[in-house]
Amino acid sequence: MAEAAPFERVAIIGLGLIGSSIARAARAGGVAGSIAAYDRDEAVAVRVAALGIADVVAASAADAVEGADLVIVCTPVGVCGAVAAEIGPKLKVGAVLSDVGSVKGAVVRDMGRHVPAHAAFIPAHPIAGTEDSGPDAGFAELFQDRWAILTPLSPADEADVERLRRFWEGMGANVDTMTVEHHDLVFAIVSHVPHLIAYNIVGTAADLEDVTQSEVIKYSASGFRDFTRIAASDPTMWRDIFLNNRDAVLEILGRFTEDLQALQRAIRWGEGDALFNLFSRTRAIRRSIVEQGQDTAAPDFGRRAAPPPPAGER
Amino acid sequence: MAEAAPFERVAIIGLGLIGSSIARAARAGGVAGSIAAYDRDEAVAVRVAALGIADVVAASAADAVEGADLVIVCTPVGVCGAVAAEIGPKLKVGAVLSDVGSVKGAVVRDMGRHVPAHAAFIPAHPIAGTEDSGPDAGFAELFQDRWAILTPLSPADEADVERLRRFWEGMGANVDTMTVEHHDLVFAIVSHVPHLIAYNIVGTAADLEDVTQSEVIKYSASGFRDFTRIAASDPTMWRDIFLNNRDAVLEILGRFTEDLQALQRAIRWGEGDALFNLFSRTRAIRRSIVEQGQDTAAPDFGRRAAPPPPAGER
Ligand SMILES: NC(=O)c1ccc[n+]([C@@H]2O[C@H](COP(=O)([O-])OP(=O)(O)OC[C@H]3O[C@@H](n4cnc5c(N)ncnc54)[C@H](OP(=O)(O)O)[C@@H]3O)[C@@H](O)[C@H]2O)c1
Ligand SMILES: NC(=O)c1ccc[n+]([C@@H]2O[C@H](COP(=O)([O-])OP(=O)(O)OC[C@H]3O[C@@H](n4cnc5c(N)ncnc54)[C@H](OP(=O)(O)O)[C@@H]3O)[C@@H](O)[C@H]2O)c1
Repeated sequence: MAEAAPFERVAIIGLGLIGSSIARAARAGGVAGSIAAYDRDEAVAVRVAALGIADVVAASAADAVEGADLVIVCTPVGVCGAVAAEIGPKLKVGAVLSDVGSVKGAVVRDMGRHVPAHAAFIPAHPIAGTEDSGPDAGFAELFQDRWAILTPLSPADEADVERLRRFWEGMGANVDTMTVEHHDLVFAIVSHVPHLIAYNIVGTAADLEDVTQSEVIKYSASGFRDFTRIAASDPTMWRDIFLNNRDAVLEILGRFTEDLQALQRAIRWGEGDALFNLFSRTRAIRRSIVEQGQDTAAPDFGRRAAPPPPAGER
Repeated sequence: MAEAAPFERVAIIGLGLIGSSIARAARAGGVAGSIAAYDRDEAVAVRVAALGIADVVAASAADAVEGADLVIVCTPVGVCGAVAAEIGPKLKVGAVLSDVGSVKGAVVRDMGRHVPAHAAFIPAHPIAGTEDSGPDAGFAELFQDRWAILTPLSPADEADVERLRRFWEGMGANVDTMTVEHHDLVFAIVSHVPHLIAYNIVGTAADLEDVTQSEVIKYSASGFRDFTRIAASDPTMWRDIFLNNRDAVLEILGRFTEDLQALQRAIRWGEGDALFNLFSRTRAIRRSIVEQGQDTAAPDFGRRAAPPPPAGER
């Protein structure tokens, strides 16, 4: 006998890459009885209806959440508070409200105060995505074997946390929990600052007078192109992340700059051993990431055709 | 009738990723009559013999270059001078000496003075590679549709430059020429500084007290893992690059840091528009790189299984 879905009625607000992937994955995983969707972008709403990935495309956020057992806000972080203000009063008794924001502290601050006492607010963040946006970029397998982090706010929510965990596991994710503060520090180093320096180096390259943009593009395979993928991510989403995880980002950025200055000094003074030692240490981390299945072992991310087997050589 | 190979006898010194790929590609492309190989690492020499990618595995660099029409030094940049000192006196009349170093100014300085008047020295740099090293990492298709840059030193070498161009084109590369100084500046921005900041962020992450290494690895799919690929590149090769392209690297690094400080300030003061504007500008560069075939258009470098077609959805 099939287990009952953890949530009967699920509402998704914001049907971009993440929201539309949840709609697809929740249906594929059988973890939602029915799905109501709302996006403020009319073109997105029309597209979601055409794709058929939701049972209902609602005319307003308030309509979408009516009667919902689980509501997931999948908009950029900067508008989560406004969305919560609109839907908070409409949440049914016992509803679970969640989100997918890449920042948790600011989302908790902005959404938390609009959540009525009769509903549970459990923030979440799936560690999965691509550089693309919108409902056509989403796919049902996005969360497969990836992590989803829950940052529960109150010990009283335990049963609801378990239901939300089953929901994410049903979409293929592995679930972890941590505090809001720790989340924001961890993602400042593994995600936010890496994106910032990628955006920054691409900007620096674009602004040089002595190297043309066409040279930068032509020779990008020597390292630069890797950064451009990340620096092609959605500008609204990333503006909101930096504005809303300011303290942790500035802290990690301070560390990064300090370390970079030490490297700069080593280059200036010809300290080869200091460079060699760092460059050897960093290899071990790559090895662990590949061993733990968090990246492909193929050289160059497998972008290039694999080398032919030695048998093909004489 | 098949065109004659541009060079009859080719010698390769250093049979790592690049040297072994040249051996394979030159044979596959029919641009070398015969290939002699020398590597100072005994294990590499044995492996090259077993792979059968050279006609002769020589016991010394001097032996390898004897009678060679083209000699390509494929060692790390830091030892190019010592190799040139050894082989310079053995170069035959009319021989072409070349290299593949990622830095050109220092290589010209170190190798140039050992080249006899009866030989032509034409520095080169193929824009192709992976994060792996050694003869087993090489493959014949490495240079296919990639750029190879020649930095000729004297107008008198024109005929030899043409032969070397045919050699690289025969291995599938597109050939460009530029000055030594311009090369070193271009590659500081498209390759050297990107590698430096990748090494640096991985080092910063490893040294944090409040975020564990296992968390960094676990959640690396959110951006960080991209940097670890580059930061897994060979420590000797990269130490040599930074020590030997010091001035250009420090200049570009100065720009990078200045720009990063402006971003830091925008985050501190909540200047969302400045962030949004930069993040929008950088997308255009990514688009051009993909359009010009310098990177895959697949989201996430195609690492993840492609989304199923919409037809699969109801
Ligand atoms: N992309 C990733 O890799 C990733 C990974 C993990 C978590 N996240 C988080 O997931 C969230 C969404 O990211 P995404 O990549 O899915 O973004 P996206 O593809 O840009 O989609 C966001 C959608 O939300 C809509 N929206 C904006 N304001 C709204 C409102 N007030 N009411 C209803 N809909 C609204 C947007 O419409 P408009 O175009 O009109 O604004 C857009 O259709 C962000 O908080 C991000 O931090 C993203
Ligand atoms: N890898 C890339 O992506 C890439 C791309 C373009 C250009 N390049 C340039 O290509 C060159 C080689 O890089 P690679 O990746 O092929 O390196 P690699 O895989 O590490 O191979 C270098 C080989 O040269 C040998 N060697 C060192 N000193 C020698 C000497 N004095 N005589 C003979 N052999 C010697 C090394 O042996 P030991 O192990 O004993 O030192 C090693 O087997 C570097 O100058 C690099 O800047 C690399």
